[in-house]
Amino acid sequence: MRRIAESTVRRLSIYLSFLEEIQDDGVTTTSSDDLARLGGTTSAQVRKDLSFFGSFGKRGLGYSVPELTTALREILGLGKKWRVCIIGAGKIGAALARYEGFRERGFDVTALYDSDPAKVGHRSGHIVIRDTKELEKDVEAHRFDIAVITVPAENAQPIVDRLVKAGLKAILSFAPTQLSVPDDVELRTVNMAMELEGLTFALTNRPDR
Amino acid sequence: MRRIAESTVRRLSIYLSFLEEIQDDGVTTTSSDDLARLGGTTSAQVRKDLSFFGSFGKRGLGYSVPELTTALREILGLGKKWRVCIIGAGKIGAALARYEGFRERGFDVTALYDSDPAKVGHRSGHIVIRDTKELEKDVEAHRFDIAVITVPAENAQPIVDRLVKAGLKAILSFAPTQLSVPDDVELRTVNMAMELEGLTFALTNRPDR
Repeated sequence: MRRIAESTVRRLSIYLSFLEEIQDDGVTTTSSDDLARLGGTTSAQVRKDLSFFGSFGKRGLGYSVPELTTALREILGLGKKWRVCIIGAGKIGAALARYEGFRERGFDVTALYDSDPAKVGHRSGHIVIRDTKELEKDVEAHRFDIAVITVPAENAQPIVDRLVKAGLKAILSFAPTQLSVPDDVELRTVNMAMELEGLTFALTNRPDR
Repeated sequence: MRRIAESTVRRLSIYLSFLEEIQDDGVTTTSSDDLARLGGTTSAQVRKDLSFFGSFGKRGLGYSVPELTTALREILGLGKKWRVCIIGAGKIGAALARYEGFRERGFDVTALYDSDPAKVGHRSGHIVIRDTKELEKDVEAHRFDIAVITVPAENAQPIVDRLVKAGLKAILSFAPTQLSVPDDVELRTVNMAMELEGLTFALTNRPDR
């Protein structure tokens, strides 16, 4: 398959979230116009995004909501369980370990790590916190698919390097720092402090209008 | 002041988070090389980023950590309290209302809204959930600086339109949809499901290597 742009994948996520909502409301068909409106795009773009993955919908009839939902879940890799480990049992790490949204989307958080001896061996929710020292051994033994990084900025790159070396291919980082990974490792970053500071910067430095 | 690129503001956030960490460790001076390493950039870029806001550091001596920390907090608008309201008292909204990271950075969550009569009037943490109907009145009366949107995708744009009309200038959205705002309103989006699906898409559709 040819390389799909990250922006396309983001729109597929938006379409899916909309489809899941209207499916819950009992809606059975939808149109590229409806999908476009919510995705902030055009119906031509919707058809193009979907055309990468096959032929969906019928001219004049639109899309079957259950069929397109199933197809998009499959395309986005949500048709299977993903084994997730979280590294860093601070506030964010502990909150994520209990985050229902993970389980609902097939993400099975099976392990939580910290390097603080005061935390190792204690429970966070139903998960016992393990020593970060065990990481390499565990990545191999437990075949984690995705690692979520919630360690302080200064510790993030060394942890990422160890995970990559151990063979992990997908990382979601909450650490407020730029990370580098080889080309064959996928990295996504969520940084709420950064988003908030983008807002407060803009509010503080508004030009006079 | 001239228009500062969003990427510059993001790097300022990274520098600040690094400075706060090393300040906690008792470090008193740092260099553009150190800041560059963590920000995934060059020391020339660090100097350029800071030069927009004044003259910092001394050639050969580097930056005073406390001085630069204070300056960056000021530049990023963290020197004051921000009045924040959250709209949508679902799981994410309720979790954010209790999120310590907000308070630590000067974000004062003073109100939480929901349109579900079963939730209105009940407490989430120490905050009583108010009816979304009160939004326009409250935005004016309580002078909220920032609204955090955690409603379902289909309800997000109407809520944003109401907030904008009521005079709000900064919005952080967790709704999995594209939102539009006028030029004089700042909007940032955090979408964890989208980041995760970016990873699972990549894991599912990997070219053979």
